Amino acid sequence: MKVAIIMGSDSDWPVLKPALQLLTEFGLETEVIVASAHRTPAKVHDFVATAPERGVKVFIAAAGAAAHLPGVVASMTTLPVIGVPIYGTALNGLDALLSIVQMPSGIPVGTMALNGAKNAAIFAAQILAVGNPSIQDKLLVHRQNMVDEVEAKAAKVLADQSF
Amino acid sequence: MKVAIIMGSDSDWPVLKPALQLLTEFGLETEVIVASAHRTPAKVHDFVATAPERGVKVFIAAAGAAAHLPGVVASMTTLPVIGVPIYGTALNGLDALLSIVQMPSGIPVGTMALNGAKNAAIFAAQILAVGNPSIQDKLLVHRQNMVDEVEAKAAKVLADQSF
Amino acid sequence: MKVAIIMGSDSDWPVLKPALQLLTEFGLETEVIVASAHRTPAKVHDFVATAPERGVKVFIAAAGAAAHLPGVVASMTTLPVIGVPIYGTALNGLDALLSIVQMPSGIPVGTMALNGAKNAAIFAAQILAVGNPSIQDKLLVHRQNMVDEVEAKAAKVLADQSF
Amino acid sequence: MKVAIIMGSDSDWPVLKPALQLLTEFGLETEVIVASAHRTPAKVHDFVATAPERGVKVFIAAAGAAAHLPGVVASMTTLPVIGVPIYGTALNGLDALLSIVQMPSGIPVGTMALNGAKNAAIFAAQILAVGNPSIQDKLLVHRQNMVDEVEAKAAKVLADQSF
Amino acid sequence: MKVAIIMGSDSDWPVLKPALQLLTEFGLETEVIVASAHRTPAKVHDFVATAPERGVKVFIAAAGAAAHLPGVVASMTTLPVIGVPIYGTALNGLDALLSIVQMPSGIPVGTMALNGAKNAAIFAAQILAVGNPSIQDKLLVHRQNMVDEVEAKAAKVLADQSF
Amino acid sequence: MKVAIIMGSDSDWPVLKPALQLLTEFGLETEVIVASAHRTPAKVHDFVATAPERGVKVFIAAAGAAAHLPGVVASMTTLPVIGVPIYGTALNGLDALLSIVQMPSGIPVGTMALNGAKNAAIFAAQILAVGNPSIQDKLLVHRQNMVDEVEAKAAKVLADQSF
Amino acid sequence: MKVAIIMGSDSDWPVLKPALQLLTEFGLETEVIVASAHRTPAKVHDFVATAPERGVKVFIAAAGAAAHLPGVVASMTTLPVIGVPIYGTALNGLDALLSIVQMPSGIPVGTMALNGAKNAAIFAAQILAVGNPSIQDKLLVHRQNMVDEVEAKAAKVLADQSF
Amino acid sequence: MKVAIIMGSDSDWPVLKPALQLLTEFGLETEVIVASAHRTPAKVHDFVATAPERGVKVFIAAAGAAAHLPGVVASMTTLPVIGVPIYGTALNGLDALLSIVQMPSGIPVGTMALNGAKNAAIFAAQILAVGNPSIQDKLLVHRQNMVDEVEAKAAKVLADQSF
Repeated sequence: MKVAIIMGSDSDWPVLKPALQLLTEFGLETEVIVASAHRTPAKVHDFVATAPERGVKVFIAAAGAAAHLPGVVASMTTLPVIGVPIYGTALNGLDALLSIVQMPSGIPVGTMALNGAKNAAIFAAQILAVGNPSIQDKLLVHRQNMVDEVEAKAAKVLADQSF
Repeated sequence: MKVAIIMGSDSDWPVLKPALQLLTEFGLETEVIVASAHRTPAKVHDFVATAPERGVKVFIAAAGAAAHLPGVVASMTTLPVIGVPIYGTALNGLDALLSIVQMPSGIPVGTMALNGAKNAAIFAAQILAVGNPSIQDKLLVHRQNMVDEVEAKAAKVLADQSF
Repeated sequence: MKVAIIMGSDSDWPVLKPALQLLTEFGLETEVIVASAHRTPAKVHDFVATAPERGVKVFIAAAGAAAHLPGVVASMTTLPVIGVPIYGTALNGLDALLSIVQMPSGIPVGTMALNGAKNAAIFAAQILAVGNPSIQDKLLVHRQNMVDEVEAKAAKVLADQSF
Repeated sequence: MKVAIIMGSDSDWPVLKPALQLLTEFGLETEVIVASAHRTPAKVHDFVATAPERGVKVFIAAAGAAAHLPGVVASMTTLPVIGVPIYGTALNGLDALLSIVQMPSGIPVGTMALNGAKNAAIFAAQILAVGNPSIQDKLLVHRQNMVDEVEAKAAKVLADQSF
Repeated sequence: MKVAIIMGSDSDWPVLKPALQLLTEFGLETEVIVASAHRTPAKVHDFVATAPERGVKVFIAAAGAAAHLPGVVASMTTLPVIGVPIYGTALNGLDALLSIVQMPSGIPVGTMALNGAKNAAIFAAQILAVGNPSIQDKLLVHRQNMVDEVEAKAAKVLADQSF
Repeated sequence: MKVAIIMGSDSDWPVLKPALQLLTEFGLETEVIVASAHRTPAKVHDFVATAPERGVKVFIAAAGAAAHLPGVVASMTTLPVIGVPIYGTALNGLDALLSIVQMPSGIPVGTMALNGAKNAAIFAAQILAVGNPSIQDKLLVHRQNMVDEVEAKAAKVLADQSF
Repeated sequence: MKVAIIMGSDSDWPVLKPALQLLTEFGLETEVIVASAHRTPAKVHDFVATAPERGVKVFIAAAGAAAHLPGVVASMTTLPVIGVPIYGTALNGLDALLSIVQMPSGIPVGTMALNGAKNAAIFAAQILAVGNPSIQDKLLVHRQNMVDEVEAKAAKVLADQSF
Repeated sequence: MKVAIIMGSDSDWPVLKPALQLLTEFGLETEVIVASAHRTPAKVHDFVATAPERGVKVFIAAAGAAAHLPGVVASMTTLPVIGVPIYGTALNGLDALLSIVQMPSGIPVGTMALNGAKNAAIFAAQILAVGNPSIQDKLLVHRQNMVDEVEAKAAKVLADQSF
């Protein structure tokens, strides 16, 4: 029950790290790799081709600009691929978003929001939870914790007496 | 192992129908419902709340314009939700795409391309295949068939002598 | 004659606070709540369902990114809902704007500019002023004050001798 | 309790007509005028200036392209102004939408979706219903009818046996 | 031979000031006013209506966001109106640009680039130069100076030995 | 007092023709040329360089896609250049609009709306009217005629009894 | 001196065919293949890997939507790759354009306009002409022919007496 | 075998400098010039017209906003022109990108990503390598070095123990 995180550039790491942390909190095994669809395509190919034998069940692939990595991974596997478009100043991330989400018929990528790495981790856990009630339980706890956090922050707003 | 298809308007049906056909080809059970996040929110709520007891494991939710349905479904469940933005003339579908994909942290929706209903079906099958090798086999057959179709069409191009 | 302000995240509070101040200046009663359409949907539901009995006549709902909150509130009430899209760096706020304004036929949201919380307060007052001449008077005073402010600032420009 | 509909061009009439019909169904009085912020500004000015004495309580203003009409109307009154951006092929309606919704602080326009004239009518009725329970009742009936229509259409989808 | 500069907000002044300086360099008379199409429409109206008797021949009108000012000025005169869209963070200035340039048939606004105030001054001078050879001469000198400046800067680039 | 119309492609002619008709109605002399900034740059250069001696006072330049023609004309003259971006399906005309309006400091192009050729003709007449009261009179008549047309069309809307 | 044309889908063929015709007119050898970066990645890989030994010197790669093909080809070769984004209704081709042009540092794709297949052919010929004067001569002839065609069409416009 | 770099403004120099460095690393001769399509068109013309006799084989042309320079260079030569759109805050670089890439049929510009100057250098080298195996060798070494760099950075990510 392993989740593989693959990012196109080491500069994506700060965005991806919280995904890794969250997957670890969910008790899931992970693999992390930096490999570019354009600069190191052979490395991507080898990583994806051998992933099933290492127990990978889901991919999280992140890239910016002409973000081909998630689609390229999806072209090499029938395992689910979750795409994370990385925000960049030029074009405000629209390039990364459209490059990932507008996949042609036959090769889906489940696309998250710009920089939505935490959601990618949750979505990966949701996929693995389909056949695994214990992950489902962790997701329910995580959602409840999120509600509690939202409530705590909301309380601070209501306590704001500054005007 | 049931996939629930929920669409915001009956006008989305022509886009969604091929998804239903494909899920049936994969041998998966399905449910179809027309329910709007805005016009019939209670119906959406009841459908999602009772889905697990009917065996639903994955949702495919489709909507256009201010396309809230996938996000609203995702807010009510920890099962995976696949979003399909429906193309509309005004704004070229950008409204539907952004309304679905830009979900806040905590509540993911795995977003497909505009009108990407067939990919939603494949992605749903990929999710269910994680714990089910027989679906995995069907996905591999489907991909091979797709390759064969592409090749057949490619051969026609090469045979084109019209210039 | 109460106006309810509902925001999707505590991070929206700095944008919304001037709206609250303005409503108070207009002598209107207010309620403020932080509740997310996605993270705490039940809280949103309860707040909206019970609002009429607390005297709420108008809602101001603010959210960013896939900004479903105003539409979700509107789906639960026939009271007027004013939407405030919150600006975010990624996609320059276009996601929030389109998610709020492009509502389907049947469920309107009166949408303001990005971060247009002060205008939401004025619009709420305009709505309540329809049946209440004293609020109408306050709006006229407010507009005149605005003119005076604009004139004062304009005078400074004309006095600028720096070139 | 009159609603004034003002449109920038006679070509907007097919979009606006359903709004007029809906307001009539709600039992509201209406006024319709074709007057352009740019081509006949004096006519706009006179119409708005004298509207209160004719009993107008809410404006619905529609325009396309550089759609200044709603903002210009709002600059002349403190009554609520509902803006309807009219879709045009060039720029897909983005020009009309941004010209109407991005109003500066102080002068709000409650903006509807592109071509969202029916929603403008509902929103006008919601505003007038704040102090008028009988309109509120009509809105509730209208919403229920809408639910019934959605359900009837949904039933047709489920009955579709064509695949 | 006077050029009137009208800006919607005092915050536009830093953008407009270089235009005033350039017009002065061209030896043209100028008028500057801060007046908003939305907040002080009567002031705009009076200013434009009386402009011809003060000798105004061309208007430069600048505004941001839902930038109606240039179009509103153009609706009140048949003198040429030059529009300057003011850049703003939200939507990157696209709102101001489209609000100014997409004028309906009959009422033109000669639109400059975002924050293109200096070009507005040059364009105003070009208009006045049509019947005035001495302004034409100043424009030729100005363009030659610009070429010289470009050349001086270009020389610095070529002298850069830093790599 | 001649206006030169220059278009980048013969396919722009249907858009430009009404401009020519309007200029003729205003009693202005005209020249028309098809010359491309990219395909026939020498022709553009010769036409612009010799224009003053033929009595040209204003240019109207129209082009689509990477619409460089208006800017290229402006780079060769200090006469006023009016730019008309031509709408095309791909990118909805945004390419033509931005290519024309976003001119760098020093070389202005007074940009019209997409396909705004009639407004270009009016704007050219406004420029020539600065030193010529008889053209000013024609502009006033033209505007009044426009008002009358708008009123005639408006009357038809009000007479519509079809609902 | 062979040019390889690779397209992602047989539906791109009508756009690409004129490129093939033009290359043939230039006397260049060509290869055409339909192969998808996503659906038949192995075919793409084999085609590109063996291209040099077949004498391929330049690639023209065309694709629509999440158009990864040109970038994927470029990742496998250091030969020049020319990208042709294919226009599609949804998002007006912006997805294809950004997916192709926004390549990361290290792996360039020389991108043409949407559907700019003829320009891709010319650009391929320009590349091959660098070391081959006879192709350079053909390019000069082609450009002169284009000028002649433009002139012939221009003459028709000037002969238009229909108004 | 010379590559000419032409930029529209000295402010583009920091973006272009790495291209010059890379070309030098590849052992290619270079020329650098600052010349604007709009401000110094004659200089552009002279530079391009005489380039072949100085041994120029490829142009790299960079510009921002209404970025006409690459297209203008391309209109004057049949040598390959590589365009580099320069990012600017207003409109996020979309103006520069579309102004460069959307060239009309007949006059291609091989367009790079926003600020993609390094890729322009690589692409220029790829063009010159077609007939020159020693440059081809340098490109292969460069790509391998890039892979090594990516790997070194990737190793740092994997070594990150900070969570």
